Amino acid sequence: MTGANAIVLLSGGIDSSTTLAIAMSEGFDVYAMTFRYGQRHEIELEAAGRIAEAFHVFEHRIVNIDLRGFGGSALTDDIEVPTDRDSETMNSAIPITYVPGRNTLFLSYAVAWAEVIGAFDIFLGVNAMDYPGYPDCRPEYIVAYETMANLATKVGGESGKRLRIHAPLIMASKADIIRRGLELDVDYGLTSTCYAPSSDGAACGRCDACQLRKDGFAKAGVEDPTEYANLDESRT
Amino acid sequence: MTGANAIVLLSGGIDSSTTLAIAMSEGFDVYAMTFRYGQRHEIELEAAGRIAEAFHVFEHRIVNIDLRGFGGSALTDDIEVPTDRDSETMNSAIPITYVPGRNTLFLSYAVAWAEVIGAFDIFLGVNAMDYPGYPDCRPEYIVAYETMANLATKVGGESGKRLRIHAPLIMASKADIIRRGLELDVDYGLTSTCYAPSSDGAACGRCDACQLRKDGFAKAGVEDPTEYANLDESRT
Repeated sequence: MTGANAIVLLSGGIDSSTTLAIAMSEGFDVYAMTFRYGQRHEIELEAAGRIAEAFHVFEHRIVNIDLRGFGGSALTDDIEVPTDRDSETMNSAIPITYVPGRNTLFLSYAVAWAEVIGAFDIFLGVNAMDYPGYPDCRPEYIVAYETMANLATKVGGESGKRLRIHAPLIMASKADIIRRGLELDVDYGLTSTCYAPSSDGAACGRCDACQLRKDGFAKAGVEDPTEYANLDESRT
Repeated sequence: MTGANAIVLLSGGIDSSTTLAIAMSEGFDVYAMTFRYGQRHEIELEAAGRIAEAFHVFEHRIVNIDLRGFGGSALTDDIEVPTDRDSETMNSAIPITYVPGRNTLFLSYAVAWAEVIGAFDIFLGVNAMDYPGYPDCRPEYIVAYETMANLATKVGGESGKRLRIHAPLIMASKADIIRRGLELDVDYGLTSTCYAPSSDGAACGRCDACQLRKDGFAKAGVEDPTEYANLDESRT
């Protein structure tokens, strides 16, 4: 147990939930931070709340961000979420589900909060394998962010301590992430992955995120506890 | 005239208003961005609106940020703003008016907006001379931010173009800034500087910001158009 505070960015999906479990396993007192940024559904926020509760985090804060006004992404605009794409198509370009500057904005809130609560460790569940097209999921981006953050803050400036940005899953496959999480008692039935869930919360099974999730569980040899909207079409 | 879009972070004070005038003078189509972040008064926002209007910016957007919940600063909490401090005291430590991570957060919103409108230039009026105690006003911070931002975005990633963070006043004295702004027709009567204005909008004349402003006008040899709350005490 370190007894130190850490901030974990928690979306309620597989990667961030596993990241939270890793931070807990390293002995940090976890402050979880979730963003409401014009998503079309609140299901992600509910999933984040369930995970935060299951792991008894020290505090869970939901921050409102108005990204919808900026446009530029299927996750916040009314553009159709693409479905049934193969992995080559998925990875060939920056997907339209990319939100401009999202991780930069999220980390900036985390840095502000870290300074207030005296945390030197920020965890986020970015993954470069699933989405090579997302510029702000690359290892070199995380390194550059940490450098900048240490110049930006009192923490990095005067105390002699360094702020660290932890991205423990950045080079892991989805199957590895799931295996790691199960070792750390993550209940993936509490998480939410789908970009376009139905009104009753069922996952579509066909968007990029659902496909990556299903593939990950299949490769890990574990049953996916997710309830999919149409079992016939989506249980591949 | 470049005909290119630029984002200018506009607080409504001397530095950001002068920075806006500089961006206009370089021929950019200016998109001004102002943040409502739990300040105790709306006077800054009104000043920003007046400047944006006077310079006929292309668009002026006010973004709501809830920094108050984070605490940690006299500008957003109910801590007394210090007054009548000499410059040595002012510069000896990070002032309590420091807002954790403020410029990082503001720039992150600017980067997100820049990506959406296709801007490659972001201007901000940070100044390392007035507030050597603010870590996020140092030139090395701006350089690190620019490096990070170019890794974070599609702009920096694929297009081959670089995002540039301009801080044209970072090493200028307040007197130099005022002289520069007057050459560019900035009406400083429209700006607002005070950390603790009275309810009718009059500046206190005694907080760090008012003192720096008054000193700047005195050294520039120009009359300060600001209306101060108590002429006897404050017109030094």
